[in-house]
Amino acid sequence: MIPRYTRPEIGAVWTDQAKLQAWRDVEVAAAEALTPDVVPGLEGTGEGGEGGGPSPEDLDAIRAATFTVEAVQEREKITDHDVAAFVDVLSASAGESGRWIHYGLTSSDVLDTALALQLRKAGEIVVAGAQEVAEALAAKAREHVHTVCVGRTHGIHAEPTTFGIKLAGFALEADRNAQRLAEAFDQVAVGALSGAVGTYASTSPAFEAKVLERLELQGEPVSTQVIPRDRHAQLLQAISLAGAGLERLATEIRHLQRTEVREAEEPFRAGKQKGSSAMPHKRNPITTERITGLARVLRGYAQAAVENVALWHERDISHSGAERVILPDATIALDYMQSLAVRVVSGLVVHEDRMRENLEITSGALFSQRLLLALVKTGMVRDDAYRIAQELAQRAWDTRTPLRQLAAADERCSALDLDAVFDLGHYTKHADELVGRLADAGL
Amino acid sequence: MIPRYTRPEIGAVWTDQAKLQAWRDVEVAAAEALTPDVVPGLEGTGEGGEGGGPSPEDLDAIRAATFTVEAVQEREKITDHDVAAFVDVLSASAGESGRWIHYGLTSSDVLDTALALQLRKAGEIVVAGAQEVAEALAAKAREHVHTVCVGRTHGIHAEPTTFGIKLAGFALEADRNAQRLAEAFDQVAVGALSGAVGTYASTSPAFEAKVLERLELQGEPVSTQVIPRDRHAQLLQAISLAGAGLERLATEIRHLQRTEVREAEEPFRAGKQKGSSAMPHKRNPITTERITGLARVLRGYAQAAVENVALWHERDISHSGAERVILPDATIALDYMQSLAVRVVSGLVVHEDRMRENLEITSGALFSQRLLLALVKTGMVRDDAYRIAQELAQRAWDTRTPLRQLAAADERCSALDLDAVFDLGHYTKHADELVGRLADAGL
Amino acid sequence: MIPRYTRPEIGAVWTDQAKLQAWRDVEVAAAEALTPDVVPGLEGTGEGGEGGGPSPEDLDAIRAATFTVEAVQEREKITDHDVAAFVDVLSASAGESGRWIHYGLTSSDVLDTALALQLRKAGEIVVAGAQEVAEALAAKAREHVHTVCVGRTHGIHAEPTTFGIKLAGFALEADRNAQRLAEAFDQVAVGALSGAVGTYASTSPAFEAKVLERLELQGEPVSTQVIPRDRHAQLLQAISLAGAGLERLATEIRHLQRTEVREAEEPFRAGKQKGSSAMPHKRNPITTERITGLARVLRGYAQAAVENVALWHERDISHSGAERVILPDATIALDYMQSLAVRVVSGLVVHEDRMRENLEITSGALFSQRLLLALVKTGMVRDDAYRIAQELAQRAWDTRTPLRQLAAADERCSALDLDAVFDLGHYTKHADELVGRLADAGL
Amino acid sequence: MIPRYTRPEIGAVWTDQAKLQAWRDVEVAAAEALTPDVVPGLEGTGEGGEGGGPSPEDLDAIRAATFTVEAVQEREKITDHDVAAFVDVLSASAGESGRWIHYGLTSSDVLDTALALQLRKAGEIVVAGAQEVAEALAAKAREHVHTVCVGRTHGIHAEPTTFGIKLAGFALEADRNAQRLAEAFDQVAVGALSGAVGTYASTSPAFEAKVLERLELQGEPVSTQVIPRDRHAQLLQAISLAGAGLERLATEIRHLQRTEVREAEEPFRAGKQKGSSAMPHKRNPITTERITGLARVLRGYAQAAVENVALWHERDISHSGAERVILPDATIALDYMQSLAVRVVSGLVVHEDRMRENLEITSGALFSQRLLLALVKTGMVRDDAYRIAQELAQRAWDTRTPLRQLAAADERCSALDLDAVFDLGHYTKHADELVGRLADAGL
Repeated sequence: MIPRYTRPEIGAVWTDQAKLQAWRDVEVAAAEALTPDVVPGLEGTGEGGEGGGPSPEDLDAIRAATFTVEAVQEREKITDHDVAAFVDVLSASAGESGRWIHYGLTSSDVLDTALALQLRKAGEIVVAGAQEVAEALAAKAREHVHTVCVGRTHGIHAEPTTFGIKLAGFALEADRNAQRLAEAFDQVAVGALSGAVGTYASTSPAFEAKVLERLELQGEPVSTQVIPRDRHAQLLQAISLAGAGLERLATEIRHLQRTEVREAEEPFRAGKQKGSSAMPHKRNPITTERITGLARVLRGYAQAAVENVALWHERDISHSGAERVILPDATIALDYMQSLAVRVVSGLVVHEDRMRENLEITSGALFSQRLLLALVKTGMVRDDAYRIAQELAQRAWDTRTPLRQLAAADERCSALDLDAVFDLGHYTKHADELVGRLADAGL
Repeated sequence: MIPRYTRPEIGAVWTDQAKLQAWRDVEVAAAEALTPDVVPGLEGTGEGGEGGGPSPEDLDAIRAATFTVEAVQEREKITDHDVAAFVDVLSASAGESGRWIHYGLTSSDVLDTALALQLRKAGEIVVAGAQEVAEALAAKAREHVHTVCVGRTHGIHAEPTTFGIKLAGFALEADRNAQRLAEAFDQVAVGALSGAVGTYASTSPAFEAKVLERLELQGEPVSTQVIPRDRHAQLLQAISLAGAGLERLATEIRHLQRTEVREAEEPFRAGKQKGSSAMPHKRNPITTERITGLARVLRGYAQAAVENVALWHERDISHSGAERVILPDATIALDYMQSLAVRVVSGLVVHEDRMRENLEITSGALFSQRLLLALVKTGMVRDDAYRIAQELAQRAWDTRTPLRQLAAADERCSALDLDAVFDLGHYTKHADELVGRLADAGL
Repeated sequence: MIPRYTRPEIGAVWTDQAKLQAWRDVEVAAAEALTPDVVPGLEGTGEGGEGGGPSPEDLDAIRAATFTVEAVQEREKITDHDVAAFVDVLSASAGESGRWIHYGLTSSDVLDTALALQLRKAGEIVVAGAQEVAEALAAKAREHVHTVCVGRTHGIHAEPTTFGIKLAGFALEADRNAQRLAEAFDQVAVGALSGAVGTYASTSPAFEAKVLERLELQGEPVSTQVIPRDRHAQLLQAISLAGAGLERLATEIRHLQRTEVREAEEPFRAGKQKGSSAMPHKRNPITTERITGLARVLRGYAQAAVENVALWHERDISHSGAERVILPDATIALDYMQSLAVRVVSGLVVHEDRMRENLEITSGALFSQRLLLALVKTGMVRDDAYRIAQELAQRAWDTRTPLRQLAAADERCSALDLDAVFDLGHYTKHADELVGRLADAGL
Repeated sequence: MIPRYTRPEIGAVWTDQAKLQAWRDVEVAAAEALTPDVVPGLEGTGEGGEGGGPSPEDLDAIRAATFTVEAVQEREKITDHDVAAFVDVLSASAGESGRWIHYGLTSSDVLDTALALQLRKAGEIVVAGAQEVAEALAAKAREHVHTVCVGRTHGIHAEPTTFGIKLAGFALEADRNAQRLAEAFDQVAVGALSGAVGTYASTSPAFEAKVLERLELQGEPVSTQVIPRDRHAQLLQAISLAGAGLERLATEIRHLQRTEVREAEEPFRAGKQKGSSAMPHKRNPITTERITGLARVLRGYAQAAVENVALWHERDISHSGAERVILPDATIALDYMQSLAVRVVSGLVVHEDRMRENLEITSGALFSQRLLLALVKTGMVRDDAYRIAQELAQRAWDTRTPLRQLAAADERCSALDLDAVFDLGHYTKHADELVGRLADAGL
């Protein structure tokens, strides 16, 4: 991912250094588990204390072994194989003891288990960020629980609601996405050291269990040479879905910031920030537009990840090239989008006065359903009531005459209690209850 | 979805008749819940026995009201609005009592709640089918727990494994997908009767709760006019991922059926089925190829579903046109693919003799890792051991000379116990344990 | 595709009947080309007049042979192979002469060449529809060449423009898409009768040329068993891109129809159509929303088509299952979307009064760039000019004080000719030239 | 794109330095075109010699103005707007004359026109690379025009062909993709300097024409603030389709390199490269697997690009964030994939002996169609002939008895000329003609 969209903490998860460090952690944990009880054939090698495997001194040397990214890259020019190059470098650093490094392992044992370590770190950052989004939305929803504004369907004014109810819906979606991300990162945090084709031919399931316990990872019950890629696909799908949730939020704010609407605006640093190089008057929702655009990119990554599932036999390596790109890029981009969303939500400029003004735009046509229902309640056939309400409401809007005034003058409406029909309280009376449901979700 | 790929049971979920029936069920449940304690404004309408709402006679009339697809379609030509047309038809059928139908509701209350009913039915079929796939694979895995075959990475022979281990991996992936589907259908089975913009202005949360209890659906804590579309997107993502799992299985079988490999074949009706109109000798894996192709189509549906999330404000209706296509098509296609997969797996023709033959193709080069490890164990530096094993293994394969023979003749290998190195048992010794893990997953 | 979105003309292209008719046309053309000069081995069969192949009577019988969809489907239950079933049925109908049907052909010769015939028909409909969209937009652009309205970037008012300029841009994009579709359908209208693996083993390139000449199709220079699928992928990509163009248009109209904007509206049948079952006052942009949703579905089909490219060796048949769905569905959906777009554009309700009103919303802040440039022209440093223009424009907007009034009162602007700065003519003076460019594109 | 997959030449197109250089080129060309005849309002500014605009000295200063990436980034922290920051830095460097920089322009005039310059450079590299792929394939096809091998459909042996015919098909597909890329880069190489909303309010179409002539770019007939994004989407679609073509090639080679097939292999540096860290005997098709994986990623980028089309009104900026990622990443990845493909094709290890061996695997069942046709030619009903050929061919394959021997012993085949039936020459006789068609495509 480009530096512009890479925040330092998550960027650090995906550096070459971090990747090799994760490989090293797996190699060390594996060496530490090399004992005759779990690895056949070690008996009688005469080194590992009670019968075989690396001695305590070997393990000290292995734990002290070092590498540099440059040395490994240099070596890879010879081997044309990254793990082989790394093992060569680390083994050389460990001297004689180095021969126990990677003993009985195949590259993917290291690659996939180390990838799980990296993904776990990425998950800690991304899931925390997802929760922050939900919390920022929840806080803002509570702040505006009683801020009346118009609700819109099809982009057309429908009925009044409150801004708090709107935001509570976004908060709960954000919370669902945080949960999806948490589950997705959780189910992908599995390791496997099952050997060349998943048979534990050179080691054993017990060896794998020992290594994974040290690394605090779950194990894959039956792997091929690799962790099955449906797990990674689920993660990328959850990321793209979380991105779509942010896109919905971003789209809402972009709509509210439109010149004609102007009910809310992204935070803007007055006096400094330039809104447009050509048009000095503008304050543009560029942050939410950026979120929108990146959500599209996340969908593309998910697509690639699902295609990665159908590897050949005990695996081919086609997924690897794709994952080198999409796993860092997707987690980094979502982390960035989440940080933007938190900033925008927390600093959102809400124009309550504009919300009230906009409620008046249709001259009361908003109340057309209440008029309809009131007519039905007087015993009128629904279809007749519909036509009356439709006619009056459209006249109100078209002629900018208050609907209430039209209804008062219309004898077909003479039986109605217009105070009750045109009471905003009907729309807001459940706001406390609805926003209160955030607490049920722990928000 | 085209009739060719539509099985009757799931096809019946998505007919116009079934959709309108689901609408009717929601309308009836809603009418039954119309009591003054949960719907404001009903008091004093003097009809519903104790104070308001439909009387028992009204409800009888509403429950007895009928519709036909044709009548609704005819009416829609006038209204240009499907729910309005349906309500008109059903109301007319209920006579005077019809005015209580759709009372206080907005179209989406009916549409989305009814959609949840349809999705629940689809889910029962699809999830059961997913479990059948897992079970068929598990049964076949147990049958072949000790059937030795070669494991392949990159399409190249790697090390021996057993066919049971291979299939156990597929079974567990199928099981994960069955769980993903179950969760996805579960979380989408929510209803909402929250009114025009989610404020319960005409009814109340308590009214919604009564209706949903009758329908045995969960409620959406905070909705807009619609159930948020991240739920439907999760479903389509799970479907595409399950499709990718079937694609991996299909790809495996297609590989195994290749002329040069021929270790397994799709069931073929000998003597009747034509394999190729031009080439009578062929038995083609057309069923697994069909699964492969449809998995691509499922990915496209998921893409559209994720794009559906970011509706405008309290919703626009852009998702609807897409969902009319992708929800039926995706569930029907996956159901069909699952049925194909069960048929293929259950009837799979396994050529154990070919599996054994193929193990010999590389003249023992398969054992190269065991040779490498044995050399390392004698104290040799890993890199040296690697070069020796690589040289001998490639010579064996290239010259079709048994690797064991070459090793026996090579003095660098003189310290090795070649019986142990070339023992197939190393690769199969954990097969029972691995296949046994199916039971942990309830398979 | 569901009937609701299937227009009769294009629906007829994709029926089973139409498909089998296309197969029949290829089989007949192939039989007619069966002469010894182009098909080896026919010499001396003693039937086809001068030496071999079907006699004139045979050809008469073949041309007169009939089939029914039902008979073929019945036969397919035995053969499990659709072309084989069709050949069986058609051959039986032709009696003895039937043995020349499918002579030397392989199924894909028929399937892919016939598919090209169907796609050509679909292309005639879809390309014509694409041109209609461009023409409807061009006509409307000319109608509104001088209708002043605000131009918006980021959803924020930027500078005035004319509605004709806006529509001219859409017309040209529609024209580009019509061209892309024309090219895409053109390059996919190729046939191949190259036999089982593309070697013309049973026939010859000359035979293929004769058949394709009769069918008026181009030939594939080097095919496998099938026409390479990059051609079909290009078509589906062009369709998805045309869909995105319609989506942009639809999104524009949806924005313009928003309650707060209301500059244009989809045609609405006053007095009859119900806008919302609950809210009688609403006129919703449901047609353009439907276009928007279907554009997403088209993207999914394109995705599947590109995945179809990488068939195995001389082909597998995975593409077939996908194409049975996506080729009809994509062409039918685009045809439908185009028809909706033509209807909406042609009947578009344009509120010129609202356009003028909306131009005033920002109290002249729209003119900020002209103010900036005028200040620069007096010799002011750009950055200083920017800050002045930004300050005044935001004050105008925020306080609803005309910007011109603020500038007149500000001594920093004393050197400016405010009549010139606030002249709308600056924005519209090139409208005729720009809209005139439609003619360059033949619109 | 990650450095591992970024080749230097195309990497240099997409650096920050290169981007700012392109902006600078546009700004300079724009300043040079600032004359009163094409830019209204310049008259009488008294500087540009004959009446207005920048003087020759101003232009010298502007051409000499410099910037650094760091200075612009530093400035952007203040402006929060990249073009504004750049203009500030460049203007400052030009001193007094700097006020003419960006005169009358809006950011997108610079951004999109400069992007066209970058894309043109990228196109030169990518299109050349695409042609190299086609040429490498054509050369290899000619080399193997007569190398007989088996053709496979469904992964099953079908009929013999030649390796040259196979490769010629790939070469022609590569050529089609090279053309698609050339067209796509060509149609995206358009600039626009049409101002804030495409009306040329501050400049004129003639001004734009002057600037674009200097930059050797076509102009957009009617733009909004930006070049319409269907152009960029077409490019990304062409890239994804070219990627799918490489994927098909890669998949073919991966199949041919399978242990059981082993007809061709990627070039491998014997003696040095490590094929597998655990299994020294392996030579894995890792390059073609990498191509396969990256093809998936390209599909994702195309998806995002098509979603970018439907910008709001005269544009929003959501496309920008996505394009910062996908335009560089897609062009860089395809360039890399093409370079890999050229390397693999040019160095392809072809095992003609294995090709001949594999032809024998089915014991002559390959000839089943020829047997079928020969039987039909004797007057037998096609369906009867089919059953005989099917029965014998499957018996041959199953029992490893040569089909010819079975046919010779079967009285139903007594009338056949078996020499003719089992003649390989039938399959190869058109190889020269087919491979010769490469020349028609200029290959």
